[in-house]
Amino acid sequence: MSDNTNHLRLKLPAICFLLQLFTIILFAVFVRYDHETSARLWHQELRQHNKSKLENDFYFRYPSFQDVHTMIFIGFGFLMTFLKRYGFGSVAFNFLIAAFAIQWSTLIQGFFHSFHNGKIYIGIESMINADFCSGAVLISFGAVLGKTSPVQLLLMALFEVTFFGINEYILLSVLGAKDAGGSMTIHTFGAYFGLMVSRVLYRPQLDKSREKEGSVYHSDLFAMIGTIYLWLFWPSFNSAITAHGDDQQRTVMNTYFSLAACTLATFAMSALVNGEGKLDMVHIQNAALAGGVVVGTSGEMMLTPFGAMIAGFLAGLISTLGFKFLTPILDSRLKIQDTCGVHNLHGMPGILGALLGALVAALATQDVYGDGMTDVFPLIADGSRTATSQGVFQFFALLITLGFAVVGGSLVGAVLKIRILGSPLDTQCFEDQIYWEVPADHPDGYGHMMAVNSEDQERSASI
Amino acid sequence: MSDNTNHLRLKLPAICFLLQLFTIILFAVFVRYDHETSARLWHQELRQHNKSKLENDFYFRYPSFQDVHTMIFIGFGFLMTFLKRYGFGSVAFNFLIAAFAIQWSTLIQGFFHSFHNGKIYIGIESMINADFCSGAVLISFGAVLGKTSPVQLLLMALFEVTFFGINEYILLSVLGAKDAGGSMTIHTFGAYFGLMVSRVLYRPQLDKSREKEGSVYHSDLFAMIGTIYLWLFWPSFNSAITAHGDDQQRTVMNTYFSLAACTLATFAMSALVNGEGKLDMVHIQNAALAGGVVVGTSGEMMLTPFGAMIAGFLAGLISTLGFKFLTPILDSRLKIQDTCGVHNLHGMPGILGALLGALVAALATQDVYGDGMTDVFPLIADGSRTATSQGVFQFFALLITLGFAVVGGSLVGAVLKIRILGSPLDTQCFEDQIYWEVPADHPDGYGHMMAVNSEDQERSASI
Amino acid sequence: MSDNTNHLRLKLPAICFLLQLFTIILFAVFVRYDHETSARLWHQELRQHNKSKLENDFYFRYPSFQDVHTMIFIGFGFLMTFLKRYGFGSVAFNFLIAAFAIQWSTLIQGFFHSFHNGKIYIGIESMINADFCSGAVLISFGAVLGKTSPVQLLLMALFEVTFFGINEYILLSVLGAKDAGGSMTIHTFGAYFGLMVSRVLYRPQLDKSREKEGSVYHSDLFAMIGTIYLWLFWPSFNSAITAHGDDQQRTVMNTYFSLAACTLATFAMSALVNGEGKLDMVHIQNAALAGGVVVGTSGEMMLTPFGAMIAGFLAGLISTLGFKFLTPILDSRLKIQDTCGVHNLHGMPGILGALLGALVAALATQDVYGDGMTDVFPLIADGSRTATSQGVFQFFALLITLGFAVVGGSLVGAVLKIRILGSPLDTQCFEDQIYWEVPADHPDGYGHMMAVNSEDQERSASI
Repeated sequence: MSDNTNHLRLKLPAICFLLQLFTIILFAVFVRYDHETSARLWHQELRQHNKSKLENDFYFRYPSFQDVHTMIFIGFGFLMTFLKRYGFGSVAFNFLIAAFAIQWSTLIQGFFHSFHNGKIYIGIESMINADFCSGAVLISFGAVLGKTSPVQLLLMALFEVTFFGINEYILLSVLGAKDAGGSMTIHTFGAYFGLMVSRVLYRPQLDKSREKEGSVYHSDLFAMIGTIYLWLFWPSFNSAITAHGDDQQRTVMNTYFSLAACTLATFAMSALVNGEGKLDMVHIQNAALAGGVVVGTSGEMMLTPFGAMIAGFLAGLISTLGFKFLTPILDSRLKIQDTCGVHNLHGMPGILGALLGALVAALATQDVYGDGMTDVFPLIADGSRTATSQGVFQFFALLITLGFAVVGGSLVGAVLKIRILGSPLDTQCFEDQIYWEVPADHPDGYGHMMAVNSEDQERSASI
Repeated sequence: MSDNTNHLRLKLPAICFLLQLFTIILFAVFVRYDHETSARLWHQELRQHNKSKLENDFYFRYPSFQDVHTMIFIGFGFLMTFLKRYGFGSVAFNFLIAAFAIQWSTLIQGFFHSFHNGKIYIGIESMINADFCSGAVLISFGAVLGKTSPVQLLLMALFEVTFFGINEYILLSVLGAKDAGGSMTIHTFGAYFGLMVSRVLYRPQLDKSREKEGSVYHSDLFAMIGTIYLWLFWPSFNSAITAHGDDQQRTVMNTYFSLAACTLATFAMSALVNGEGKLDMVHIQNAALAGGVVVGTSGEMMLTPFGAMIAGFLAGLISTLGFKFLTPILDSRLKIQDTCGVHNLHGMPGILGALLGALVAALATQDVYGDGMTDVFPLIADGSRTATSQGVFQFFALLITLGFAVVGGSLVGAVLKIRILGSPLDTQCFEDQIYWEVPADHPDGYGHMMAVNSEDQERSASI
Repeated sequence: MSDNTNHLRLKLPAICFLLQLFTIILFAVFVRYDHETSARLWHQELRQHNKSKLENDFYFRYPSFQDVHTMIFIGFGFLMTFLKRYGFGSVAFNFLIAAFAIQWSTLIQGFFHSFHNGKIYIGIESMINADFCSGAVLISFGAVLGKTSPVQLLLMALFEVTFFGINEYILLSVLGAKDAGGSMTIHTFGAYFGLMVSRVLYRPQLDKSREKEGSVYHSDLFAMIGTIYLWLFWPSFNSAITAHGDDQQRTVMNTYFSLAACTLATFAMSALVNGEGKLDMVHIQNAALAGGVVVGTSGEMMLTPFGAMIAGFLAGLISTLGFKFLTPILDSRLKIQDTCGVHNLHGMPGILGALLGALVAALATQDVYGDGMTDVFPLIADGSRTATSQGVFQFFALLITLGFAVVGGSLVGAVLKIRILGSPLDTQCFEDQIYWEVPADHPDGYGHMMAVNSEDQERSASI
């Protein structure tokens, strides 16, 4: 038994209890039901404005929320189960850190966006935003998957949510940038934050765990559950907080076509770049999703269906090429070990999506948007900004996001290096047995390997 | 070939045909489309009340219904696939008995709640309630999982639905208790009913099947599909039939935060109670869900977000401790063999939820609820009851539920002991091969074990 | 390495790029946002008709759309993963061809149904219809599963979508037939189209791959994910494009009860037809779904709940019997190799559903439908047709569908025989290794078999 795991017995409970109790206290002090969630406030509003109960925003946001919720817990969770010996950790640590992040981000985002008279008022929209923020943390988790302890991951979530909140506040509230589906705030931020953490935590000896970094046949099928759910519900993700009416429907449609075109591009490139013309599950599981990322900013705009398709198509190409050619270089040259290839799925498509958003914003005309301009670009509609300057602000938003991600990720990476946090040894990466009771003495499946590995563990622990 | 299985050839078809045909006849005689489902009635209502088609309650309940439906068939079904050799039985018997229970409970609940002029009128709300009732049956199924034949299970569903209907009627209609998410009617009832059935069917020789009671690596991942879906959609479960508007949104939010806090408590306790500091998949798969159970009664009340968190946190602690310390005692001392640990996931958290509901009801004030009091506590709002007496009635509701569960479960357990129902031998528990054509002569996966077991079967059959 | 796979390196990218670019160009020329999706048009409508943003049809169709979307990509995709060595191909080729089909059918259906002033206007309803059309293609895919290259499948989708569009136009717009859930347009058409393709592509030497046509324990569990999702969301499928209000709610309810009764019938028949009284996963995975198919036409009509149950019950019986007795005959006598048994799940229940629809239509009376007649049978309501003649038209619609399916399938089958399309050898069917990088040198799972098979491949390639 390694020292690491013995320490986990106290460290993990300690950080879980601490974070949860601290969160409960802050909720008790600051968080209240908003005007649609409180019995008194909502019924007051009903009476004063002669409203119908059916106008509660619950009915117009909750189905989207549930799709996003599915993406966060099933989508991200199962996407990462492709690792043959890290399925428990993938789906369950995803579960743990998302469960914490949605609470913590309710506080952080609440302070920035719905803090009135010393209280944070929350409702269905804050729940969607909390899930979004936890999405960014899970993207970063993808970069460090299998190489970090749950204690490290919870600390990463604590800090990353905070940086996320500040960056999002600057983008949306200070710069007036639009980013409903989070090409910048979620994908670009989450990816480069995670890559920087991974850079700081670089493991020169990771080759000792490489044989465990692959998949088995059925772990690839589990991962496809994650992939397909992310793909399916991405239209809900991008549209979940856009303005009611045409905006939501248009965002859904753009995302739908972008993803469809991206899928064909991914299959094509996957066969093309493989020497034998075979398809690679890694590409299908990941690059086919880049079409959702790339229209995260522009999805609510008048992108046109064929514009969405072109965007998705390019994202699929770039992402697949990234998996084939860039990931190995990041590892060998830049010392960035990116377990899930988040740079290819979220990083590059996120940047492309931000640039596309800036372009489409700069091209906005009254003729195309009509009265709908108010919902999509309120600052253009009220005359305080031209379309071109909106485009420029969008571009600056990307730069600021990259800055926050790189600086934040580096700082947090440094914090996570603290020895006491129980990071696994280089020989123990991508291995559930470090943190989990694993069915072991079973003649099927993983039985034999586990036994072998158990010896490895002893050895590495005694080093 | 054992005698049991040969008999199944006629018994299972016989009971399926009998129950289904009987149900069809009762539906033909009694069941009619309600005012929102019938073409004539709804269009009459549209004309008379100058309504819009979009006010049909379908649009305000159906998304919740589909989430609940997913929990019943995917959630419960896959949660139980953790057993390495009972995956087919887990997901498919769950499917079978739920498919029967939703039909039967439409009748039973219809007689109690929507019987007018000799007819039962049904619509989207009756579908949700039918799914709820089948949830209770599936909880009981969890207690006896792997130790009962499908014939026994269908009979259990037949009787349990009936007891459920009576208990629910007494609680909601006679006592005026509130229990929208079913801490009492569904979880407490289903758990203790199943535990009593399991007690009556106690198998002193079950150790002969113990080696099959565990999981393999991938069966634990299949189970996580069930867990995560239950966790995700629990907010929809608790809110599916609460009043429109703030009530639904508040219930969703309370459940969301309760579950999040419960998850952290579960991970913490799981690491703490394990000697080596490792996490146990059984805890994560089950105890992390106790946060949904515990706010089943109080979720629609003004519990406050931090109140929900405290409830969920405690539920996670209790549930994990139950799995570690109580389940073995139930088995050895009380002769209750609880395959899925429903006592920890549904039993104790259900009781805690009922008590919490009584407490929060007793604390209700006009100041906090405003005009919304009518929706949450109509009997307090119209002055026919004080908050304190509502709390007392809630408490009595718990006692009555426990009574019905214990008496009902004992009686039904006695019925299920009838020899002809084809209960598996003690050596054949947790084994799909008794009831299923299983891929057998395959070099991968389960091939070898199955062959070995086949001999076991012959032997036990000839005893 | 076989010649086939080497060629795939260029062929698959070529056809993907070609189809996608061609589609993008057609979208650029023809496809525009409709009046609810365009910022300008919707806000114009809001102003002119004094509407609320919340009346956008997005809110009343999107949850149904997402359920249908889940059925197409998760439901169909995972249902087909039952094959032990074709899991990647099942879920991923399903993904590929559906991603293409939804784009292509948006164009084809758009030309027939929403072509105004030289443009196709699209919104949420066209997205549902596109998913429906891709459902038909995926049904045909089920018939040829494991025996066709992805290049062949994309070509099949290209042509089948076109035939589908013509047939659907004739049924709905020319004949005025009703078929909201697609018993005819989707299930009957997709099944017989696929069976004819399979007939033309008959492989007399398929026995060489038979050992690979089975399942392993966990592949059957993956398939159950598909089954349960299809079962769960079928009510949404049948109701997704019916009229608002009672129609949608009634369709949901009819489908719900039909499926429940079908499930009991399936379990009963499965045990009955098996010599040892054991249940067969193939039946549960497939026949239990026939209850959704059989009410595809009549679901929106005043079928009554018990009528729906009878229909589902019969569908379950017929479908299970078909798997047991008809599929082997189709293969041996009619030379139709039906991998997934689509004849039993979609073919026969589809025809039964069409006949049931004709019957229920012929029995429609003003007394039963009231003012709701306008929504269900507009041509009866406005006096241009009697109920009987509506029934007759429904029946002709079935005949025309069968005609289009048989002729279309035969023609497309002939096209797919072109040698260059890279059809797998008879020894290589049901085998992922032909098209995929498969985790191979791994001691677990499929490692050993794959190695053996690799030699097979060499040999067959050199023949």
